[in-house]
Amino acid sequence: MKRLQLFGLLNNDMDQIEKELYRSVQGDDDLLTETSMHLLKAGGKRLRPIFVLMGGKFGRYDLEKLKCIAVPLELIHSASLVHDDVIDDAELRRGELTVKAKWGDKIAMYTGDYIYAKALIMTTELKNPRIHQILSKAMVEMSIGEMEQIRDFFNTEQSVRHYLERIRRKTALLIAVSCQLGALAADAEPESARLLYNYGYNVGMAFQIRDDLLDLSGTEKQIGKPPGSDMRQGNITLPVIYTLEDDRLRASLLDEISSIREGHSSVGRAIDLILSGEGILRAEELASRYIAKALNALDQLPNSRTKRNLRDIAFFVTGRAY
Amino acid sequence: MKRLQLFGLLNNDMDQIEKELYRSVQGDDDLLTETSMHLLKAGGKRLRPIFVLMGGKFGRYDLEKLKCIAVPLELIHSASLVHDDVIDDAELRRGELTVKAKWGDKIAMYTGDYIYAKALIMTTELKNPRIHQILSKAMVEMSIGEMEQIRDFFNTEQSVRHYLERIRRKTALLIAVSCQLGALAADAEPESARLLYNYGYNVGMAFQIRDDLLDLSGTEKQIGKPPGSDMRQGNITLPVIYTLEDDRLRASLLDEISSIREGHSSVGRAIDLILSGEGILRAEELASRYIAKALNALDQLPNSRTKRNLRDIAFFVTGRAY
Repeated sequence: MKRLQLFGLLNNDMDQIEKELYRSVQGDDDLLTETSMHLLKAGGKRLRPIFVLMGGKFGRYDLEKLKCIAVPLELIHSASLVHDDVIDDAELRRGELTVKAKWGDKIAMYTGDYIYAKALIMTTELKNPRIHQILSKAMVEMSIGEMEQIRDFFNTEQSVRHYLERIRRKTALLIAVSCQLGALAADAEPESARLLYNYGYNVGMAFQIRDDLLDLSGTEKQIGKPPGSDMRQGNITLPVIYTLEDDRLRASLLDEISSIREGHSSVGRAIDLILSGEGILRAEELASRYIAKALNALDQLPNSRTKRNLRDIAFFVTGRAY
Repeated sequence: MKRLQLFGLLNNDMDQIEKELYRSVQGDDDLLTETSMHLLKAGGKRLRPIFVLMGGKFGRYDLEKLKCIAVPLELIHSASLVHDDVIDDAELRRGELTVKAKWGDKIAMYTGDYIYAKALIMTTELKNPRIHQILSKAMVEMSIGEMEQIRDFFNTEQSVRHYLERIRRKTALLIAVSCQLGALAADAEPESARLLYNYGYNVGMAFQIRDDLLDLSGTEKQIGKPPGSDMRQGNITLPVIYTLEDDRLRASLLDEISSIREGHSSVGRAIDLILSGEGILRAEELASRYIAKALNALDQLPNSRTKRNLRDIAFFVTGRAY
């Protein structure tokens, strides 16, 4: 998976962020450097740093300051992925072996702890206590979201509202905070920071819904891991919940899910059932509604090139730009 | 294991810290509250908060400020224990089932992440960026120490220096920082903060050496878990390294350790070998040298009741007060 490079814009600054990301996990311990770099080198869209820099464009843009938010946010995201892969028993991420698969659960756990701690070190260079508060609260919410995800594995009775609350914590919040903190670090107008938060929150929701959709309808090449991984580990996502609401499909899908849970079935038939109904379409519609809300927040921001770029990103993350 | 209550001193304040500790992990999510409270309720000496408050006595003592360091330090310590127990496959801690044993590795991992994040939230109430820096650096060092510990499992070639470096990171640093940050938060003289750091560092080293000794020579009642747990999981501690330096015992102990590693032996014979040599005595001597250094740092601090209490604690943690 490659860095998002839609616009040519900010490319030099993102190169610096990339170097800083690598530098941040080097030099302490050979094994930790290797395990941390393993994930970082596998790439990733670097969405969170991009949003930080873009948020900074709504105030006095200063890369040195923004770096101290952009790098930690990507590190926090990366650490959460390393821990997620332990929970999910995931073999592949971004087309590469996960830290968990290559080194085992225990080393993956401490790699995550180390990356989290490294993220914090860098934020201490920022003197604004509000930024620290927002960031640490987001980390608490993320860990709650992750715990909810474990507890909800194979819970076929969960509601759409429940799913949305979980992805809010797991994904949308950190993206919202990326946009907001970029603006705050650049001393942008409070109203701009608020609108950017709203934009990021809604883009993040759409992004996660789409990610969950791709797990069911994408190819291994597209998503960097085998399709159906969510189903396999019991992660009940939006298209599944919608399909379970369909009386014609509910009973068969429940059977398939319990069979997957007991290890008697692969995910193929469950995916076919979902694709045969309207779950995918309904999930796409909900993602679009979030994108509409994101655009609505954007509309209220002052016109600028960055605003147009944020608009493009909003479309990109729901797949329309493919 | 009960809170350290040697002096009656600070008891009211420590009661408040205790309440604040409980409050800090409540209200977000029922399962996270339960898993986090499980460890906190099992007790613990609360050494780090005690050192923070005592450090604060060398400046303008203000419980409200000190609380924002004392509680996070205990939380960071607790989170690291939850993650340690996953690594060590530990069943018991403080005489209770570990989070790992009761809920499994995955829930334990996120419980640790949650407690770390909760610790950070509270520190954001402090406006002194130096405190944030010191704390986040200590967290990085701790995670390096923990990774070193995994890598060194069953490494019978490690030197005493290597062992000391590992326990410095794993234990001594956080205790040093507890003493230092208490002083800094109370705006004590920089020299006092420096001496308190030295005191804490040396007490921490002695404390960990003694903890490692107790694992070999203590009873289950004394240590809250079965003796020999370190050996069983391959954690090569100081008395083991010293015994391996003894030509009369080295070959037999190496045999025993490799037999433990392969699951063919319990730890009884290895412990007997260690107890038959001078490893325990030499480790005790080294712990005493660290205590002497801690007392030397104390000597240079202004006379006060707190100073005398810190002296008593230094003796207490090496077991002389038993």
